[in-house]
Order: sequence, then C-alpha cells, then structure tokens
Amino acid sequence: MTTLVASAMARPFLEPRLPAWVVPRWFATTAELFDLAPEADIGWFDLYKKSDMAEAVRRAAKLKWLNSIYAGVDGMPLDLMAERGVIYTNGSGINAITIAEYVIMGMLTMAKGYRDVVRAQDRQEWLLDSPGKAELFGSRALLLGYGAIGKLVEERLRPFSVDVTVVRRSPGPGVLGPDEWRARLHEFDWVILAVPATPETDGMIGSAELAAMKRSAVIVNIARGTVIDQDALVAALTEKRIGGAFLDVTTPEPLPAGHPLWSLDNAHVTMHLSGRAQDKMFARSVDRFLANLDRWHSGEQVEPQVDLKLGY
Amino acid sequence: MTTLVASAMARPFLEPRLPAWVVPRWFATTAELFDLAPEADIGWFDLYKKSDMAEAVRRAAKLKWLNSIYAGVDGMPLDLMAERGVIYTNGSGINAITIAEYVIMGMLTMAKGYRDVVRAQDRQEWLLDSPGKAELFGSRALLLGYGAIGKLVEERLRPFSVDVTVVRRSPGPGVLGPDEWRARLHEFDWVILAVPATPETDGMIGSAELAAMKRSAVIVNIARGTVIDQDALVAALTEKRIGGAFLDVTTPEPLPAGHPLWSLDNAHVTMHLSGRAQDKMFARSVDRFLANLDRWHSGEQVEPQVDLKLGY
Repeated sequence: MTTLVASAMARPFLEPRLPAWVVPRWFATTAELFDLAPEADIGWFDLYKKSDMAEAVRRAAKLKWLNSIYAGVDGMPLDLMAERGVIYTNGSGINAITIAEYVIMGMLTMAKGYRDVVRAQDRQEWLLDSPGKAELFGSRALLLGYGAIGKLVEERLRPFSVDVTVVRRSPGPGVLGPDEWRARLHEFDWVILAVPATPETDGMIGSAELAAMKRSAVIVNIARGTVIDQDALVAALTEKRIGGAFLDVTTPEPLPAGHPLWSLDNAHVTMHLSGRAQDKMFARSVDRFLANLDRWHSGEQVEPQVDLKLGY
Repeated sequence: MTTLVASAMARPFLEPRLPAWVVPRWFATTAELFDLAPEADIGWFDLYKKSDMAEAVRRAAKLKWLNSIYAGVDGMPLDLMAERGVIYTNGSGINAITIAEYVIMGMLTMAKGYRDVVRAQDRQEWLLDSPGKAELFGSRALLLGYGAIGKLVEERLRPFSVDVTVVRRSPGPGVLGPDEWRARLHEFDWVILAVPATPETDGMIGSAELAAMKRSAVIVNIARGTVIDQDALVAALTEKRIGGAFLDVTTPEPLPAGHPLWSLDNAHVTMHLSGRAQDKMFARSVDRFLANLDRWHSGEQVEPQVDLKLGY
C-alpha cells in the first residue's frame, strides 16, 4: 500500500486515473495538509505559499517522492530531503512552451515599441511612425540558461535570423563557457536570462555586467528577480545605459506600488505571468505525474528529478 | 545617355554609387518632379501623396522604368503604363521581414492578452493571472496571401508548432485553393491576411466569412483595410462572434477619432506601422535599385516587376 497525499483541486483529474496500488488522501486546506503529511509515501504538496509547502515536507517523515507543478524549488528544504533520500520531481518544462512564447513576444514588443502603440490606441491617436524600429532579423542574443525553456527559445529565434549564443558548460559552436560570456557582453543586442535560481546565479547580472552591455541592449528576464542586482538595473535603466528590460520577474513579487520599475519608460513589467499565459499547465502536469506513477511502480526512474545538491 | 529622375532625399545614398551611364536629376518638391518627369527614362517618383505620384507618371511620356519603395500600387495609372510599355519595379519584399515580425508579435500579444498587461503596469497593478491564456503551440492558422510576407510568416510560425494552411493556386500539402478556404474557415484559430489589394481581394472577408469562423478566431490584417468589410467586422467584434482582430490596416487611414475600432476591447489597431518598425527599408531599397540598374544596363530583367494587368 502506497499513500499519496495530494490537493483536493487535483482530485477530479487524478482520481479516475489512479492505479489501484495508490491510496489517495486529499487535502483542501493547509491545516489538512499538515495533518496528512506524516502519512505520505508520495506527496503532491503544492501550495501558493512556499513556506507552508516546506513545512509540510518537514512533517512528512515517511515521504519517498515529492512531486510539484512548480519549476522553481527555492525555499524548499533540499538538504533535509537529501538526508532523508527523498526524490523530488518538479514542473521543469511543464510551462516551458508558454514561457518561450512569452520571451519571443517580449523581444518583438520591445523591438517595435508596441507598448506605445497600445497607449496610442487608448488615446485614439493614429501614430505616423513606429515607436520602435529594431528588427530581430540580424540581431545577436546571449542566452543564459539552456534548460527546457532556453532550448525552445533558441528554436523559435532561429527563423527570425537571430544569432543566438548559448552559455553552458559543454563547449560547441555558438557556445560560451560560464567564464567566457562576461568578456563578450558588448556584442549582444539581447541578454536572455533563463537560468535556475541558485546561489551561483544569484546577482549574476550586476553593475559590471550592465556596464559592459551595448547601450541599446535589452535584457529579458524570465528566470528569477534575484538573478539581477535590481538596484543596479534601476540605475542603468534610469541613466539609459542599456536599451531596456523586459521583466517577467522582480524582487520582491508583487512589486510594491511606487517602485521605479513600474514607471521607468524602458522597464516592462509582466508580473510573473509568462508561465500562466496558457490553460494546459495543470493537464500537462497531471499527465506527467500519472506516467511517473507507472514508472515508480515498475522501479524505473521518475523525471524530471531535481538535483538536491545543485538546487535545480 | 539615360536620365534618372529621383528624389533629392535619395541623393546622398544614390549619387556616389550611380554608374556612369546614368545622368541623375533630383527633385526636392512635387512641383520640381512635375517639371522633371517628362525628361525621365528611369523614374523613382516616390511621394507621400499617391495621386501626385500618379500625375508625375502621366507627365513622364518618355518613361521606360518606374521604381518605387512602396509595395502597394493602388492609385497608380497601371493601364496607361501598360499602354506605354513602362516597366514597374515596386517595394515588394523590402519591408517583408519587418512585417512578418509584426505578424508574429500580433499573434503572441493577442494570445497572451499583452495589451492588458501594459495597461496594468500603467496602473502599477500586479496582475495575479494572465489576461490571455492561449498558446500558439498546437494552434491552426489560415494564411491568405503567399507572397514575400506570407512565406516569411510561415517560416517563423513553424517552430511554434502552428499548423499553417496556405491559400494559393498551385496545389500541395497544407494548401487550399482559392475556392476551397471558405468552406474550411471553422477550423482555424488564426486568419492571417497578407494578400495584395486587388479587385479580387476587395472585401474578401465579409459577414459570411466572419460568421463561419470559430468564436475564438483572431484575424490579423497586414494587407489593406479594404480586404475586410469593416462594418461587418465591427459587428462581429461587438457581438463577440470572433475572438479578436489585430489590424495594422483600416478603412480609412488614419482611422477617424471616435471610430468603434479604437475602443472595442477585442480590436487592436496598429496604425499601418508594421512596415515602419525598422530603419533599414531605405538602405535595402537603394541596394536593390542599384543592382537593378546593373541588370537594366546589361539587358537583364529588373525585379520584382509589378504585373500591370493583375495589379500587384
């Protein structure tokens, strides 16, 4: 007998398709999750509040496998899970398609100055010239982070004739190593951040990196707000030392009213919506979890597994 | 001796690169163009006002070749030019890259509800969910018009996994003939209009076509406003019988203040900016014209030539 503790929200989708060897227990509130967690062999503990999810994991002394719809694992007790030998499958790749689409949208709207077109329509003003005059065609992009999202972004940029340089450990054509990209920052029209949030990527774009970019360079951040030194970014945007920033993520979230990023004319804030601009995430996540249950039962490896040491 | 009559605006770019057999005459005003036109063997008569361009062509009794930066040929005296045997090279394809980029931007911004994200930022409001939840991934597009722009759009949509059906005369996989597409309109999430403005395409999307579309279907028009029966479109948008329209072109242009297309929540007006969202059009046009001068001199065919009978 294997006990699964999962959210009652998932019940209508999961219950009819669960294999017989799984005994499900459904939680509707955080308190119920805290009560049920100690019984869980397998847990799907997703809550909006990450600290409560982490607390549930701490209480789940029998837990062997934790599943999550979320790609980000920051805030989870990874050390404790490693100690207890818990396997952790996350939502990596589940919303990668939607986020990749959002990245291309961000680049195109920045290139064409589309935000000012929206505002002009709201004023019922027929603009005689385009507020943005850049083409993706022939431009150069530096892509930091080459996971599921990064790969989909690269594929979608290729027919636009964007020259994409990828940062990763394994060398190859169009690839820069982790120690090489900083010296080449001045070459790129786009700097796309698709890295996981780890101690290594924390603040990886700071004042030195911003100063090294083209004055016309645009940063696209769909990773985590913490990947950028945000005060340094605000300074660079204010002084127009870079072209602009398309920020799906900020520090903190929500961004407080009055924060300069709301009103800077070259800061575009999209409220961590990139992964939510779709309605298939839940269905995809359920499909993947059920396939993983079959793998688990036959002793195969479930995936994608979070590396508890690396933190992604 | 071959006399070229061209705009003084082009002079700095053209003059240093003109071959010796060309004698240039530059016009700075419409009146100067009218005076010089009768001398022109080759003319580059572009004016903002199309009726004056047409008048200059009428006065150019010796004209053998007319060149233009514009793709649209509506308003030009094509019959007279055919009678006189004038060859007409237009700007077809010159801004195709930029327009194709604009089409993809339009589709992505419609899918993600990006206009409402812009408005939320202007209010400094952190949205908790995406105003649009469609993915391009797995959607189906009907592409009417398979010229330079249509081909570039198709290429760019392929890695998004959009299933593109093209309308053209020559049959093939993923192709519908001119008499076939109407019966299939209900299948498509996107209807992209990239046809030339001709009597045949005038009003090709009317109330019957709008009624046949999915309720969620989005029209993208980067052709000419006249391709759509605009009153029928306003009615369909008002009654939400289709999902929305991304309109780079309208009837008339500029769209008058107070017109319903300005304020309908599913009408997105981009003021014929799609081709202007770039700064390379003039340079590309000059390069092409100079290459055509060489071809002309060696008796080769200049291109792309407008078919004076078909009108594009």
